Amino acid sequence: RGSRNGILAPFHGNQCCGSKIHYKSLSFVASAPIRSSSFSVINHDDISHFKNILGEKGVIEDQEKLDDANTDWMKKYKGSSKLMLQPRTTLQVSKILEHCNSRCLAVVPQGGNTGLVGGSVPVFDEVIINLSSMSNIVSFDKFSGILVCEAGCILENLISFLDNEGFTMPLDLGAKGSCQIGGNVSTNAGGLRLIRYGSLHGSVLGLEVVLANGTVLDMLGTLRKDNTGYDLKHLFIGSEGSLGIVTKVSILTPPKLASVNVVFLACEDYTSCLKLLSEAKRKLGEIVSAFEFLDINAMDLVLKHLDGVRDPLPSSKHNFYVLLETIGSTESHDREKLEAFLVHLIEIGLVSDGVLAQDINQASSFWKIREGITEALMKAGAVYKYDFSLPPDKIYDLVQETRRCLRGTEANVVAYGHLGDGNLHLNISTRRYDDNVLSKLEPFIYEWTSKHRGSISAEHGLGLMKADKIHYSKSSQTVQLMGSIKKLVDPNGILNPYKVLP
Amino acid sequence: RGSRNGILAPFHGNQCCGSKIHYKSLSFVASAPIRSSSFSVINHDDISHFKNILGEKGVIEDQEKLDDANTDWMKKYKGSSKLMLQPRTTLQVSKILEHCNSRCLAVVPQGGNTGLVGGSVPVFDEVIINLSSMSNIVSFDKFSGILVCEAGCILENLISFLDNEGFTMPLDLGAKGSCQIGGNVSTNAGGLRLIRYGSLHGSVLGLEVVLANGTVLDMLGTLRKDNTGYDLKHLFIGSEGSLGIVTKVSILTPPKLASVNVVFLACEDYTSCLKLLSEAKRKLGEIVSAFEFLDINAMDLVLKHLDGVRDPLPSSKHNFYVLLETIGSTESHDREKLEAFLVHLIEIGLVSDGVLAQDINQASSFWKIREGITEALMKAGAVYKYDFSLPPDKIYDLVQETRRCLRGTEANVVAYGHLGDGNLHLNISTRRYDDNVLSKLEPFIYEWTSKHRGSISAEHGLGLMKADKIHYSKSSQTVQLMGSIKKLVDPNGILNPYKVLP
Repeated sequence: RGSRNGILAPFHGNQCCGSKIHYKSLSFVASAPIRSSSFSVINHDDISHFKNILGEKGVIEDQEKLDDANTDWMKKYKGSSKLMLQPRTTLQVSKILEHCNSRCLAVVPQGGNTGLVGGSVPVFDEVIINLSSMSNIVSFDKFSGILVCEAGCILENLISFLDNEGFTMPLDLGAKGSCQIGGNVSTNAGGLRLIRYGSLHGSVLGLEVVLANGTVLDMLGTLRKDNTGYDLKHLFIGSEGSLGIVTKVSILTPPKLASVNVVFLACEDYTSCLKLLSEAKRKLGEIVSAFEFLDINAMDLVLKHLDGVRDPLPSSKHNFYVLLETIGSTESHDREKLEAFLVHLIEIGLVSDGVLAQDINQASSFWKIREGITEALMKAGAVYKYDFSLPPDKIYDLVQETRRCLRGTEANVVAYGHLGDGNLHLNISTRRYDDNVLSKLEPFIYEWTSKHRGSISAEHGLGLMKADKIHYSKSSQTVQLMGSIKKLVDPNGILNPYKVLP
Repeated sequence: RGSRNGILAPFHGNQCCGSKIHYKSLSFVASAPIRSSSFSVINHDDISHFKNILGEKGVIEDQEKLDDANTDWMKKYKGSSKLMLQPRTTLQVSKILEHCNSRCLAVVPQGGNTGLVGGSVPVFDEVIINLSSMSNIVSFDKFSGILVCEAGCILENLISFLDNEGFTMPLDLGAKGSCQIGGNVSTNAGGLRLIRYGSLHGSVLGLEVVLANGTVLDMLGTLRKDNTGYDLKHLFIGSEGSLGIVTKVSILTPPKLASVNVVFLACEDYTSCLKLLSEAKRKLGEIVSAFEFLDINAMDLVLKHLDGVRDPLPSSKHNFYVLLETIGSTESHDREKLEAFLVHLIEIGLVSDGVLAQDINQASSFWKIREGITEALMKAGAVYKYDFSLPPDKIYDLVQETRRCLRGTEANVVAYGHLGDGNLHLNISTRRYDDNVLSKLEPFIYEWTSKHRGSISAEHGLGLMKADKIHYSKSSQTVQLMGSIKKLVDPNGILNPYKVLP
């Protein structure tokens, strides 16, 4: 989880009604929110009531546990909640929300707390509703691959469970060891295999959601197709807990196929990376399961900061690297395709070097480079993390523009991401946080993205960090309708306040 | 389009305010709706206003054209609209709706008018807004395969356009020659390749929608990933024009791969069909692009009523037939996989016969059987069409139960559908419509489906036919929230009234 050293944490003053967050710097929220005076402050009666619902064990006031739950994974955001609740059933979630709504107590739903935009921690004294204790698998249909489980299931546990059953999750991401499926759904997590299995809007078949007033919405269908009325589950996929708390998920999982292959390739320019993607879509179409890229700065960072990582193509340095994974049913066919593909790439001069993993260990070592970038960035010091979608041909222009505008600073601009989905993770690494760097980055970086019709959050969500920046990617009419829907579903605004919407 | 003979058409009396539809039978709507007195009746000023917006050509009062537009494809539903408008731009759609909303004039959005549940024709005197004149392709990105087009583009034209560009639509269905992409999106059309490319909730990247009050919602993103706020486009996918009129669509299209193969297989029992599906998902996983089934009654009907159709497996009759299509990048690999698969199937005794199409003509002839069922049913006389999603192991139980409950009648129960997606098209064919048959079918058939947690509309939507039956598939809390959202977005209820919601 890294240390707090060198990483800027917002500093909080007195948290009573109407108080303002005192940030050491406004690095993470452009306009620091003010605690809404419409929310009540928790009292002894509330706590007794929650103990009646949950028993003593489900009501947590222990300072150490609260410290953890108040702080996000990056140690960038810190709330001051005095209370964490751990329901074990949907009915308990319903009763908690019914009470909070009637008392106007603000809440923050929390899963694995692995979000990167401050969406899963309190801003002030919101009640934390932690779903970790709801971690049962409800059902699994071995024929259709449809899994129904509670929101608190850890992604990696689901992956292991399915692996034993001969299936696989349509979702995989670096935080899988901690993140929970309810949080994945609430943030519409993307991850490493979206290019193959599509987004959660496609693979989530049903949800059970508790609304702010305690109403349980049973939309927990287990059908591939269902056109009976508005498909409301989509409202809750990606709304970051601001419209309801996801308590159960039904998800279509693909069968595990026999053949997995990973190649690590080097290109000298960005255009070649794009051409490589295009060729892969044609020549390997049906078996491509990941297409990730990193630039030389990302590679250098990983090699410098992570133990046991080796350059798979050590004979020389390259400007760009691509990790290409395939999953298919027949090993001999996939390897034949890949070998022909590599020969073709070298013939047409698209790649300067490349290696096909010979076994699972080598494949893991390739993945370790790509998945280790986040950790390497943390070790290198302070980091400004951005997550953009852009038309693919614009992606590296933004990286270059960012370098240009940071010229003269010591900032290291590191670029990597899910190139197959047009998703750039742009990270600016500095020894320590520096308002000078930040003022060069913002709003420039958002304006540039908006001008090129990109998204300022491809997969991380808006959370607290970008709630006031939604207009860079959405029209005012659309944001207005979002606000009306929020008001309709959560009239007191108790669910995850200060986040997502401006 | 078939003839009206033998097909029951609802009979309409006087259409002025407060009048009631006089159905010859209540076959298609359990409770015949009453025209809402809150809607105005169109007058000369309205027509002048529309002519100002659209010019003379876009305002259609010609009786013959109106007759066509008032009647659905199946000739089951007939409205009595006196006016059809044909906008050519989004701005015109906006101005039309702004006027209709201020005057409380009800409207019905219409694309290719190929729907099967009475969703695309007026019930009374609603103004028809026909999108056919908005049929431009706005942009196509050859690199990413992202197509942006107007709502009135005919699906088949888009398929041809993409074919020339080396791409393919992620959607294909029998009505492709007439249906329009705006209608496809509004009804969340499923079709033949959902098993491979997923639903429109996954492949539609953006929409432009005009709301009831004329507000244009620009959600026309062209990005694979965008987590900035609530993903409102999903509200309009499958809401059957009752929340807004889709005017433009952005959709991700997969590259056209080189190798397409079709096999036609025979099984003796339904369980074998299911096992076959399971085997195909494992052994052919990444290349499966369609998995369709039909029973012996469907096969007999096609052979009897359609010219030029031959039994691909003529040596004997079989109880079930499966059409399995694969799409992949390498012909030799796909054929090798398929041949090994067929050998394996015969070894384990899952299929009794099978044939792999040797060329595109033979492949088309196999598809003609599956796609010809609708036409054969029309030729056979009257037909009660149902469209269910069910857990796959329950699908044929419903067919058998239906046969049991119709014993003693002359009804022919015909079953086919998208087995790979758990979608059964259950059709009851009779010489003529018969209330006795209908009363045996309903509500039994809906209750049975509801009891087994199925959907009473997998892909056809609810329209007029099933608006009052939504409770069989959705919880009352969910339906209530749908109603609240409808009221929020269309407070006067002018968009496609009497449909979707009860």
